[in-house]
Amino acid sequence: MKSKENRMVNGLDTQQMFETVAAIKAQPALARFEFRNSNRWIDGGENRSTIQGFYGAGREDDSRAEPFEFVNGEPPVLLGNNEGANPVEFLLHALAGCVTTTLVLHAAARGIRIESISTQMEGQIDLQGLLGLDDTVSPGYEQIRMKMDIKADCSDEALDDLLSFVRKHSPVCETVCRPVPVIVERVAAVRV
Amino acid sequence: MKSKENRMVNGLDTQQMFETVAAIKAQPALARFEFRNSNRWIDGGENRSTIQGFYGAGREDDSRAEPFEFVNGEPPVLLGNNEGANPVEFLLHALAGCVTTTLVLHAAARGIRIESISTQMEGQIDLQGLLGLDDTVSPGYEQIRMKMDIKADCSDEALDDLLSFVRKHSPVCETVCRPVPVIVERVAAVRV
Repeated sequence: MKSKENRMVNGLDTQQMFETVAAIKAQPALARFEFRNSNRWIDGGENRSTIQGFYGAGREDDSRAEPFEFVNGEPPVLLGNNEGANPVEFLLHALAGCVTTTLVLHAAARGIRIESISTQMEGQIDLQGLLGLDDTVSPGYEQIRMKMDIKADCSDEALDDLLSFVRKHSPVCETVCRPVPVIVERVAAVRV
Repeated sequence: MKSKENRMVNGLDTQQMFETVAAIKAQPALARFEFRNSNRWIDGGENRSTIQGFYGAGREDDSRAEPFEFVNGEPPVLLGNNEGANPVEFLLHALAGCVTTTLVLHAAARGIRIESISTQMEGQIDLQGLLGLDDTVSPGYEQIRMKMDIKADCSDEALDDLLSFVRKHSPVCETVCRPVPVIVERVAAVRV
């Protein structure tokens, strides 16, 4: 068995990674995950999320002693006080993170060592959609563009091939690119 | 003119809101916004986003003296150390926040006063997609379910009508429900 140091590629324990893949191949139900969030409205454009538990690898996770808490806000031009980044900005954070982590993971699986990744991204939204002023305008992002500067110990061709694979396998990227059903139910009692 | 106190509904300045809508109707280009994010890989499943400026209402916003910073991480079962919530969890935070804020905004426009909103949500992902183990499995969320407990000074019918409108007009909800193009380019130099 390799030492822990030798098993680490891009900060990931490749032995744990390959063992996880082997376990899922033997028992695909281990790949089923459920992620969760609780959110409470504070006032105006401010609301707060609490994220802690999830289900995955066949059991409830208990690795987080404390919940993560995040604050959505809005800038003054959108009637808020910059209580936090706003939800469409958090979506960009989620997307950048997911593409980056998916890239690092599949690089490790291919034996590619990543030196650095820096990403700049932008997305356009026409508020006429949100405001319901023009039914021909989509309320969401028109498109999102990511510019990634990736340095690694492989050829440009290998990086392009990796990135092409990653775009199709990043969970957040694929959730944005594909129509994913969002079911909203009004219920009598949710305690957050 | 109403006093500021009388103009506030659900924590939103309704006079500013109606003036914004009137300005956009007169000059639709004011509705065009561009949101941005810069992200840098740290190690393994950890990466960090910096969010500050955006373009909207015809100019670059300068309301944020300091940038927001957010950390993506992964739990141990996904090869990380809980450095932060993970990207698919941040997506849920973005979605909860956007539906909530869109609801509060359109409630104010309709003269509905919201007392409280509490939301619990969950989404299922099969990691066989991310890992590339089964091409028939989508890497993203299969679906996302939101349970919202909304208390307000209106009838259940008015709330259901509001919520139905909101689902179709929330920018993040609509970005998830509709296929939105994500363009990923590899570039030589991005400084973050």
